[in-house]
Parts: sequence; C-alpha cells; structure tokens
Amino acid sequence: MIKEKDQRGDVEALLAKAKKPSADAMILHPFYRGKIETTLKCAVRDFNDFAIWYTPGVAAPCRDIAVNPEKVYEHTNKWNTVAVVSDGTRVLGLGDIGPKAGLPVMEGKALLYKYLGGVDGVPIMLDTKDPDAIINTVLMLQPGFGGVNLEDIAQPKCFRILDTLREKAEIPIWHDDQQGTATVTLAALINAVKLVGKKMSEIHIAFVGCGASNVACSRLIFGWGADPAKCYMVDSKGILGIHRKDIEMRKAEYVDKWKLCQTTNAEGREGGIPEAMKGVDVVIGLSQSGPGVILPEWVASMAKDAIVFACANPVPEIWPWEAKEAGAAVVATGRSDFPNQVNNSLGFPGIFRGTLDVRARTITDDMCYAAAEALANHVGDRLEADFILPNMDDWEVFPREAAAVGVKAQEIGVARLTKSYDELYQQAVSIIKRSRDMTHRMMEEGFIAEAPAT
Amino acid sequence: MIKEKDQRGDVEALLAKAKKPSADAMILHPFYRGKIETTLKCAVRDFNDFAIWYTPGVAAPCRDIAVNPEKVYEHTNKWNTVAVVSDGTRVLGLGDIGPKAGLPVMEGKALLYKYLGGVDGVPIMLDTKDPDAIINTVLMLQPGFGGVNLEDIAQPKCFRILDTLREKAEIPIWHDDQQGTATVTLAALINAVKLVGKKMSEIHIAFVGCGASNVACSRLIFGWGADPAKCYMVDSKGILGIHRKDIEMRKAEYVDKWKLCQTTNAEGREGGIPEAMKGVDVVIGLSQSGPGVILPEWVASMAKDAIVFACANPVPEIWPWEAKEAGAAVVATGRSDFPNQVNNSLGFPGIFRGTLDVRARTITDDMCYAAAEALANHVGDRLEADFILPNMDDWEVFPREAAAVGVKAQEIGVARLTKSYDELYQQAVSIIKRSRDMTHRMMEEGFIAEAPAT
Repeated sequence: MIKEKDQRGDVEALLAKAKKPSADAMILHPFYRGKIETTLKCAVRDFNDFAIWYTPGVAAPCRDIAVNPEKVYEHTNKWNTVAVVSDGTRVLGLGDIGPKAGLPVMEGKALLYKYLGGVDGVPIMLDTKDPDAIINTVLMLQPGFGGVNLEDIAQPKCFRILDTLREKAEIPIWHDDQQGTATVTLAALINAVKLVGKKMSEIHIAFVGCGASNVACSRLIFGWGADPAKCYMVDSKGILGIHRKDIEMRKAEYVDKWKLCQTTNAEGREGGIPEAMKGVDVVIGLSQSGPGVILPEWVASMAKDAIVFACANPVPEIWPWEAKEAGAAVVATGRSDFPNQVNNSLGFPGIFRGTLDVRARTITDDMCYAAAEALANHVGDRLEADFILPNMDDWEVFPREAAAVGVKAQEIGVARLTKSYDELYQQAVSIIKRSRDMTHRMMEEGFIAEAPAT
Repeated sequence: MIKEKDQRGDVEALLAKAKKPSADAMILHPFYRGKIETTLKCAVRDFNDFAIWYTPGVAAPCRDIAVNPEKVYEHTNKWNTVAVVSDGTRVLGLGDIGPKAGLPVMEGKALLYKYLGGVDGVPIMLDTKDPDAIINTVLMLQPGFGGVNLEDIAQPKCFRILDTLREKAEIPIWHDDQQGTATVTLAALINAVKLVGKKMSEIHIAFVGCGASNVACSRLIFGWGADPAKCYMVDSKGILGIHRKDIEMRKAEYVDKWKLCQTTNAEGREGGIPEAMKGVDVVIGLSQSGPGVILPEWVASMAKDAIVFACANPVPEIWPWEAKEAGAAVVATGRSDFPNQVNNSLGFPGIFRGTLDVRARTITDDMCYAAAEALANHVGDRLEADFILPNMDDWEVFPREAAAVGVKAQEIGVARLTKSYDELYQQAVSIIKRSRDMTHRMMEEGFIAEAPAT
C-alpha cells in the first residue's frame, strides 16, 4: 500500500510501479506454463483401484445416474465445477483480442476461484463471436458443470447471452463483469454512504461509463433503494436520457441502455461527465483508464462529502489524492496499491461457493444483495474513509458470503439442498482452507517450483 | 491375478469377484464426490501475486498471444490440456445413457490421463446427439485445449466425427475407442504372432464384433501388414462380404463397413462366428459381454497355435481357461485379473504425452504404430504366452511410448517442436513422476482422504 503522502506528485513512480506486474507476468507465465492443472481427488492405493475408478466398476455409478440424474452431483465433481466461458471479445481493457489471447485471464480467474473459493474453475475459450452459438454451446456444456461464469464477452450481446442462458439453463449462469462487479460495488457503496451519513434513497449518482459493468451496477444499486430518477448515466456520447435519439434508434439492440434513458435523469440533463457530476453525492467510474478522465474541478462541483469510485483499470479515472484534494470524503479504485480496492475477486469466489453448496438453480439479484451485505458487514467497526471494503487477504469474508448467499437461495426457493447458515459457513471454511493449504504445501514440497527473482 | 488352477470351475467366485469393483465404486464415488479437481500450478507468495496472475499484470501475456497466437502454448496450460469429450451415447457396455451418466467414465479417463501420462484431462459432456453439433462444438472449443480425446460416442457417427475433426481441427483429435483400442490390440498381436512364430502377412484373422473398436483394429492391423483378403469381420448379422446387401443398401451411412465388405473375406464365406473362426490363426473379439459368445469348439476349429483375444467387458466372450483347453496358445482379455490385459490405458496416456510434447498437429496411424511397437518391444525378453503386454503398473512404458510417438511425429512432419528421443523420454519421465508423486503426497498428507473400508 502506498501512503498518501508518498503518492502525491510521484506520478512517474506510480506509473512505473503499475508496470511491474506486467513485467513480472511476462517472466512468470512462461516459467509456470499454466496457472491451473488437474489433480487426482480420490485415492489410488494400487492399480486395482483403476477397476473402481474406471471400467468395470465405474459402470455402477453411471447406471445410478442414468436412473436418477440428480445423482451426478454425488458421484462426480460436477457439484464443485464451474466453466469459465469467454469468446475473448472484451478482455480486460484490451478489447477483442480473441479466445487464445484471453486464456491467461480465464486461467487467472480459475486460479482465484480455487484459491479464494475452493471452486474448480475450468477455462473454456470459444472460437466464435456469434451470441447464438455461445448460448447454444453453453447449454450443451451443462451436464459436466455445476455452474457457468461468463467472462469478458462484449456488450451489448453479453446482456442477451446472460438473460437467455439464465432463462434456459438448468445450472446457475453468472456474468462476472455484470453481476460480480455490481455486487462488490454495491457493498462498497453501502459502506461509503453509511460513513458519510446519507440515505441510499436520497443520493444522486453519476455513473461514468455505460458498459456491462456499470449498467449492472446501476440495476443492483437501484434495486437496493437508490432512485434512478436522481441518477445520471454517461456513455462516450454523453448523458443518457430520452433526448438520446442515437440510442432510441437502436433500442432493439441496446435494450438495457434505452430503458436507462427512460428511467434515469428525470431532470433531463444533457452534456458530458462534468454536467452529470454537478451536485451529485456519488460518482461511479467504470470507464476508460485514466488519469484525466474525471477532473478535480468536477469532483469539487459535487455535493458535500462526495463519494468517488474511480474503478477503471489499470489507472483510475482520477488519482485518489486528486479526488481527495478536490473534496471527496471517500475514494475507491480498482487497484490493490490504493486503499478501498473495488475488486471482483471479493465477490465471485464466495458467491459461487454458496451457490454450489446449496445446489441453487440460479443466482438471483437477491443473492447478490445477500453477498453485498455480507461483504459490507464484514468491515464492521473497522469502517473508515480508507477502509470501506475488506482486503482480499481477509479470507474469512468468502465463507461469510457463501453462507449468506446459500441461506438467501433457500429463502427464495432456488436451492435444492437445505443447510443452516452455520453448516454452510463451516463447509465453506473447510473447503477453502483445504484449497489454500494444498497450494502452500505444494509450494513447500516443490511440486510448484519457486518463482525466479524478478 | 487369479492363477489358472484356481480359476477352473470356480466361475461363481469369478463372477462375484467381477462384481466387487462395482460395489466398491458405489461406496467410493459418493465418498470422494469427484475423481479429479483443479489445483494451482503457479506460486502464490502473497496477495500481490494476484496482480501478476490476474489484472493488471495478466494483460501482458494476453497482448503477447494476440500478436503471436503460438505463444498461447507458453503462457498457459493449453500445451498440456486435453478435452475428454463425449455425448454419452455409447458408454462402456451400457449404451446410450446420456451425458450426465457418462461423466463418471470421463472423470475416470481424466484421472488415468493425469496419473499415467501427466496430461491434464478435462471432461466435457455434450448435451446433444447430433454429429454436426458435436463437430462444431469441438471446433469451437479448440483455443483452450492442446488436444481432444473423443470417447464413448456411438457408431457409425463416431467415424464421421473423427474424420471431419481430424481434417478441420488445428489440434490433434483422438477417438480412443477407435485409435486407442486398435493401438494396444496391435501391440498385443505383434507379440502374440511373434511368440507362435507366424508372419503377420500370412495370418488369417476373424474379427468378432464390428463396432468402432474392431473396425479401427482391422485398419491398423491391415496397415501393419496383415492381408485383409485373409480376414473375416463378423457383426450381429454375420460375416461381412459383398453378399451383405443390408450393408450395401446403407453404404452411405456405413462407409467403413461397406469398404470392409469389399476388402475382406476374399473366400466369400457366409455365416456367423463359427464359420468365420474356422481355420483362422487369430480371433479378436470386441463384441458383447460373455461368456458363451465364443464357444470352445470354435476355438478348437482354429489353426494350430491359435491366438484368442476375447476383449469384451466386463466378461470375456470366452473364459481364458476354456480357450486354452480348446487349444489356444495365447489368450488375452480386457480384464485386469487375467494375464494379458488388452487395456486402452496402456496407450492413450503415453501417446498424448508424446503428441503434446512435440506439439503435433494431429495423431496419425504412423504414430499409433510407433506407440504399438514401443509397447510390444517393452515386453522384450519377458515375452511368453501369459505375458504379451506390459502391466499397467509398469510405469516406464508410458515415457517410452511418448518418446517413440514424438520422434515419429517429427519424422512425418506433423510436429511443431524438435526434440530428440532422449529429451522426450526424460521430459515424459519427469512430468509423469511428478504427477504420481503429487498424488501420493496428497494422500499421505490427508488432502485426499483415506478410503473407507469396503
């Protein structure tokens, strides 16, 4: 963590620091040649065990599943396996780099799933950009997976893909860029609003950027009680509203965006980011890498005790110290080297842990709210301007989210198993702890080689 | 291994023994709830490493692959990952039990890939029976995988699926029921023929069963020098030949079978299994579970020093002692509790190890021959009637196959990397040893729980 006094004015050093992970990544990726692998989960006492795990013995569980398909959750690893599916059309901030080039990200996601949530993530890179082909393929892949994490798929097709799959699939489908980002952002907002003593129903918000993430953020935040009429969405062409003929003309394609044109911005503001930010309590930036996307004077024009989430990667829309000097009371970014990192990784591992552990059929917004609340509450008495979210190394947050999500799934009737909060919490603790311990033991014993100096 | 003197007459005990793996499987599958899982392959020294493995650092290898797609083999685990793809339409001897019920088999296959070959196998169960959908899906899945193992897909569609994919895919496609079985059967036949002092080009063979396995066996065996004109194929309706109007009428669908009608059985024999077996040197049964599918008197009607491969599962077409009493010089089955187990698991882990290690574009019949020869030669001086193939716990056979396959791939120009036999052998030894050691260590340390008594 870089202390604020060391940050100011030292932008060059910060930018250099921002490049260090990239340089390390180029050395360490070819060193390990992969970030996840398969490993045996069952004992092989001697070669006779192969008659149990494979032919002829394996025929018995096969027959059992053929008679009762639900048994696939008991005889196989389906219950704990999530496909991480991408077509590589919107990878990080890199755009459409294709399915091969997107694989390092999906392997990274699978690594986070395992290490933080004990979930077996399997990267599935699809060599197509056709939304219908993506939908059909995911539906076809269902038998072997307990859930699907869609990732880095371009908008607007990602909305239809998610909506169609949530409707048609029998296993839970999650688009992390939408639901994951929105859940963690909501958690951060709950705590920030609490800290400055405002009310969710009364705050004015400017959403800077109208990609999949911010559209989903707005949905969850409005669902949690913020009033859309008091909020502004800004895309690359300006503030959304009923005046936006360019969106109206393509409303069949941009369904969600046109809906936002009609529900937000009751005042009928026109213009760009500065016009949207004027007088608002909160700005949520999920747009393009900064700095300079949001200017200090625009922050100064916000209401008292302004909340600034500048979450673009790799560089925030505005440097945190600039936002604070301009009057922001709370600042969050997407970076781990500043306080208040709004990081998807705080969400999906725990959310899917809980979803899988109650065998939920889907992941609803209510389950996202349960996760966001668990995440926000986990901060508890530690809440302050520079601590509105737990850190990623605070591993207890994941079983708490898992248990909250699992309980909520039962309440709303999408769970197929019944488990108490305590059971879910203990199960998640045990699975996650095993996963982390195993990694550390493999490192100690040299099955994972020591990283070369970088 | 059951001694021959203990076997005779004790059929009840044998059948009971055959049921033990099934009973164990029904206890141990729900105990472990999955046979493979994912695990981290790279170090996590502290949470700052996530900035290398995920955003922002991961963007650098992504960009590198976007510029040079071949780099995906260096920055990710693609180089070592094989999709084990099935639609569940012909699972073991169970028939069309569907993709969920087939998952325990594919997980078992993935287990064998990892334990015996150090290859990361990922089960992919497809919820479709449409051959074109299977072809298109496999093509779409290519970016994340180094190869594809098709498994338990019904014939005749499996032939077209394999042929089309081998033509269109940029990664190697393998149908283990065809190529794997054929490779190991050929290895067994090479040694059996050598043992009885006959010549491959002169032997007469009756193939009992015309499924994907035996059709592929015949292709490899004919390619190795056996004369199709001297051989007989028998399906459920009798011996194949130009008299088989039922096949001729559907020759567009049964392309391979009709070709066999024209190339085998020069004598024009008609009838069933006994007619086909009369006077032949070898019978290769890959048909339905016995006993009683092949009768002792038919074995007695074969040429001197008869070779009987009765490879149906779970029970051979004829009990080994019956075949021997009827005059067979060499008997092999598919079971691990008799001598001479003709087991696919002796093939695919080593073959794919070698294929991946030279980054071969495909797996040709020549590479199968190289593997079969390595397998046959590994028996060496130990060759005798009850030892024509290595046992599965003879782990050195896999690196030998891998090196032979890798060298052959380079000779025929399908390899994208250049490596010597020794390099390939040492690399395979090191990868396979790590995989096995890791499993054992995980068992010792309790990450894989001790199996309950069964």
